[in-house]
Amino acid sequence: MVLFFDVFGTCVDWRSGVARDVAAVAPGLDAGAFADVWRSRYQPSLEEVRSGRRPFTKLDVLHRESLEALLAEFGVEGLPEERRSWLNLAWHRLDPWPDVAPGLLRLRERHITATLSNGNVRLLVDLVRHGGLRFDAILSAEVVEAYKPQPEAYLRACELLDTAPSGAMLVAAHPDDLAAAAAVGLGTAYVARPEEWGRPGDHTMPEPGSVGSQVSSFVELAEVL
Amino acid sequence: MVLFFDVFGTCVDWRSGVARDVAAVAPGLDAGAFADVWRSRYQPSLEEVRSGRRPFTKLDVLHRESLEALLAEFGVEGLPEERRSWLNLAWHRLDPWPDVAPGLLRLRERHITATLSNGNVRLLVDLVRHGGLRFDAILSAEVVEAYKPQPEAYLRACELLDTAPSGAMLVAAHPDDLAAAAAVGLGTAYVARPEEWGRPGDHTMPEPGSVGSQVSSFVELAEVL
Repeated sequence: MVLFFDVFGTCVDWRSGVARDVAAVAPGLDAGAFADVWRSRYQPSLEEVRSGRRPFTKLDVLHRESLEALLAEFGVEGLPEERRSWLNLAWHRLDPWPDVAPGLLRLRERHITATLSNGNVRLLVDLVRHGGLRFDAILSAEVVEAYKPQPEAYLRACELLDTAPSGAMLVAAHPDDLAAAAAVGLGTAYVARPEEWGRPGDHTMPEPGSVGSQVSSFVELAEVL
Repeated sequence: MVLFFDVFGTCVDWRSGVARDVAAVAPGLDAGAFADVWRSRYQPSLEEVRSGRRPFTKLDVLHRESLEALLAEFGVEGLPEERRSWLNLAWHRLDPWPDVAPGLLRLRERHITATLSNGNVRLLVDLVRHGGLRFDAILSAEVVEAYKPQPEAYLRACELLDTAPSGAMLVAAHPDDLAAAAAVGLGTAYVARPEEWGRPGDHTMPEPGSVGSQVSSFVELAEVL
């Protein structure tokens, strides 16, 4: 089987990693709140592309635009360009959840594994190197030129790996991503990441019966599949 | 630095692998000659796409068309569809040259490594799994929608890894591939693969001074870089 993995939230802990780097460049700020607001700009910025109002633009660029707006809103002034661009790359330095590296190794023994993320290719390559992760392929919105949950994102990923949707599965911590994958025929596995937003329990669970598997870690997923 | 690797001939021994599988399905044939002729159809079939006479078509499909023509030319009749499609996937089961797996591991310690091959993504994923190889990213003509040596193939690969051409290098056993990469600004490393065509010495060497590095293995390349 071909297993596609969502990355932000599912494989890596974006909130802690972003907050860590925010704290490093702007010590007085509520770094967790800054991370949350930065992340909350994510879907609206993707929607500009998904709607066709804007040509395909890689996530690093969208992140940078949100960052500029946020720095102004949070009253951060005079941050040099070098620090801004370093901070924008916080998204390339996120730590994986502890079960991800060992779980991926086990899953890869019997399945083809690939990222399927809205992150751009270099961002994903950097995350994989940073976290010591192992995937067979780095697939990205940038490669398929469509941002999830657009159906083309899942379908084009299946084409690139020569599989019918029924031979593939999306692994994600987000019910909306899984629902979109299921709508075009992929199998689904929900991995609970209750710490994603920093407040245990403040995450969206799938409707009962709406996903193929429901697990609490990649290691558990390897047992199930 | 970002290192791009050509695959057929440079990383894997296509001739032995194809001949092995030809011999398995058609024992009476000159399997080496069959492999050579199959490979010789490669550039003409890519040229149909490069010239714009044909929309982008993945290499597996081009290989299959060449295979059908060749089976007829070699007088092979009655081969069932299942064996034909298995034989076409010989290109997914090629063994790497012995220095490739250890050399890639060493190169990856200090550089980002990616395939840059005319093979399609699934073909490359299968080769990497078969050979126990390690790359950071699988980039392919199928991803950049241009067949080497078209300049877009190299330039789009650089874009996906967020590098200027001057921050990247192509590693290949073929002077024409290297010349095309150099023409758009990439560094170059020639790896000699004198056994590629099965007859030692029957390979094209680069003009003196035309490549950045010239080595006899990936392990030697890791020493040099």
